[in-house]
Amino acid sequence: MSLTTATPKEQLEQLQLGTTDFINEKEMLGKLEKSYKDKKPLLIKFGADPTRSDLHLGHTVVLNKIRQFQDFGHTVQFLIGDFTAMIGDPSGRNQTRPPLSAEEIKVNAVSYAEQVFKVLDESKTKTVYNSEWLGKLSSTDFIRLSAQYTVARMLERDDFTKRYKENSPISLHEFMYPLCQGYDSVHLKSDVEMGGTDQKFNLLVGRELQKAYGQTSQQCVITMPLLEGLDGVQKMSKSYDNYVSIVDTPKDMFGKTMRVSDTLMLRWYELLTSVTPADLAKLKEDLKSGQKHPREAKVELAKFLITRFHGAAKAQAAEDEFNRIFVEKGLPDEIPTFHKAAGEIGLLQLMTDLGLTASNGEGKRLIQGRAVELNQQKVENEQLKVTLKAGEELIIRAGKKKYAKVVVS
Amino acid sequence: MSLTTATPKEQLEQLQLGTTDFINEKEMLGKLEKSYKDKKPLLIKFGADPTRSDLHLGHTVVLNKIRQFQDFGHTVQFLIGDFTAMIGDPSGRNQTRPPLSAEEIKVNAVSYAEQVFKVLDESKTKTVYNSEWLGKLSSTDFIRLSAQYTVARMLERDDFTKRYKENSPISLHEFMYPLCQGYDSVHLKSDVEMGGTDQKFNLLVGRELQKAYGQTSQQCVITMPLLEGLDGVQKMSKSYDNYVSIVDTPKDMFGKTMRVSDTLMLRWYELLTSVTPADLAKLKEDLKSGQKHPREAKVELAKFLITRFHGAAKAQAAEDEFNRIFVEKGLPDEIPTFHKAAGEIGLLQLMTDLGLTASNGEGKRLIQGRAVELNQQKVENEQLKVTLKAGEELIIRAGKKKYAKVVVS
Repeated sequence: MSLTTATPKEQLEQLQLGTTDFINEKEMLGKLEKSYKDKKPLLIKFGADPTRSDLHLGHTVVLNKIRQFQDFGHTVQFLIGDFTAMIGDPSGRNQTRPPLSAEEIKVNAVSYAEQVFKVLDESKTKTVYNSEWLGKLSSTDFIRLSAQYTVARMLERDDFTKRYKENSPISLHEFMYPLCQGYDSVHLKSDVEMGGTDQKFNLLVGRELQKAYGQTSQQCVITMPLLEGLDGVQKMSKSYDNYVSIVDTPKDMFGKTMRVSDTLMLRWYELLTSVTPADLAKLKEDLKSGQKHPREAKVELAKFLITRFHGAAKAQAAEDEFNRIFVEKGLPDEIPTFHKAAGEIGLLQLMTDLGLTASNGEGKRLIQGRAVELNQQKVENEQLKVTLKAGEELIIRAGKKKYAKVVVS
Repeated sequence: MSLTTATPKEQLEQLQLGTTDFINEKEMLGKLEKSYKDKKPLLIKFGADPTRSDLHLGHTVVLNKIRQFQDFGHTVQFLIGDFTAMIGDPSGRNQTRPPLSAEEIKVNAVSYAEQVFKVLDESKTKTVYNSEWLGKLSSTDFIRLSAQYTVARMLERDDFTKRYKENSPISLHEFMYPLCQGYDSVHLKSDVEMGGTDQKFNLLVGRELQKAYGQTSQQCVITMPLLEGLDGVQKMSKSYDNYVSIVDTPKDMFGKTMRVSDTLMLRWYELLTSVTPADLAKLKEDLKSGQKHPREAKVELAKFLITRFHGAAKAQAAEDEFNRIFVEKGLPDEIPTFHKAAGEIGLLQLMTDLGLTASNGEGKRLIQGRAVELNQQKVENEQLKVTLKAGEELIIRAGKKKYAKVVVS
């Protein structure tokens, strides 16, 4: 595994981009310098819960940063938390979260890994299961581990503080999870641990436990912010329906990316690509001066993402398809999308329902004026019935600039 | 092992005498009735920390109550907490409490057991070591155990509450001790656990864990009060020098017991003997009516204690000796005792030092009046030099009623 030719300073600058917590710069530079000098990759820990399902772009923010480490030649310790998962909810009180069997964990882990390796470089990744060492700890080891942390410090974790204040019960074993996770770092001798901002406390426990167990160098802790979803306001989440799944079709990925705001587009560049700080600054300048059109920058972003998740050929095909439908046919980049159930409906009524026309009478006049298109075909029949079939999409133009897309479900 | 003929109600009445917590009467009666009916002894758990040194009477209050259970035919689970002791102070921060080696624990346990069996009936005692089961728990078992208790409930233990409020650090492993101790009750399926009042919280954890682990019947919890020392005010403790060690000589035990107040004597009856509630009531009545002299009751108490710790023959000998010296020679029961270093001193000066005389002149006049005795021998020489030899005791009488005992060290 060859290390990058990027200098430690250059690596640091890139790695700091877009991060929320970076603990800390000085130690990180020291580690990068030592790695550079000794030609020895750093060990970057990333822990995953094998109960997790499909990923969306929001989940890949951390992975993307880790990928940057790999691009500099460092090694990822991809940790499957099967020990914790096998315990499930040990109190047995929560019926909705039963312990997973070893088989289920393995299936989940394989599916999770498949998705993760859309972003990470598998050749620079070492997959490990924490049951290998946590499962072997004796009761004495466990007491020794729990002696390394105080109750008060554990209660400083935001969610624990809140629940304790609200008299909402915290089981003692919940205190064990950060300790187990921290002990993973001790065992793995990790140089860096990455996670979301909500993981900061747990990641710091790992750093402190490494010290408590006598390791001379402790892991740096890097957290990444939450990615805003397509609306540019809420965090990307399935429940807000503002997400791009990593299994979305190339066409959807392209379309969704083209529709994000210019501001959000820059944010995605920062958090989802490996743009350098210098390149990002130049992009901003070019957009400001008009040297580059935002649409062009979005096309590049969309192609980068599709290449990552579907390969370069699909990315090019998606661009071509997009150009054919939207650019060449003169469609705008952003068309409001509406979901409809399958069935049959009069076009006039549909247009009114979608807000394209104020009334069926207005729709009638527009059709008479040859100003209505259904899927880029002029409509001449005022009484046209439209059949909505599940899985299909329709694009309706009413007048010069009013468009609507109907997704049939 | 034969069970007593005492009825469950009679047993209950006796067992409740002198207790602080008795959780709870109804369940206890149920257990006693079942045991009586099935002719199956109850299992009485008593946990000991093998770091403990010599016992005094204060430590035997709990043992005495346990002995009452044995006298009713029940079985004692004498638990040596070697698992906890082997861990020592796992944080390694407290240098004054190093982990004990298995060998040290064994030595301590043997010495402790030797003392315990001065009170307990060895034939009705099963000695067990909790490393046998706690040492075999896996990390998963341990997490499962810790899931049974909440942080808030653990912080309700008085000392934890206090330390948490004072921002004095509580290591997480300290929360594990009550859980381990409680798990012992789960493993042993104990019917009753006994301890001092300071153990109430931990004993209740055992009761709750038995329930959490699905045992249909949970242990009753009995705590005993602290025993007041010879002064009748402070708790009996080496640091207050108001104790009777169980290795004190018969002579000392006799002497110390004769010197306690009448009130304290009744308290000792209650907490250190197996007097029945009816007998105790009668004793109080007889003392009040003058039917019985307190000295007589104290002699009986002293003989009971000496019999327990040294055997019946020694008890009788101690009484005879006491009678010879004190009663027959007309010495009072209580003589103020003073400690002096070995050396030589004039008797006049010694008497003044002890406060027997206001001045050496007064002492001189008393000797001239033949009113001074040294060890029951009239003193005639005003200039007598007394040689104080380490280990010896002197009794001086000055005038008709003033006595002092000098213990030379």
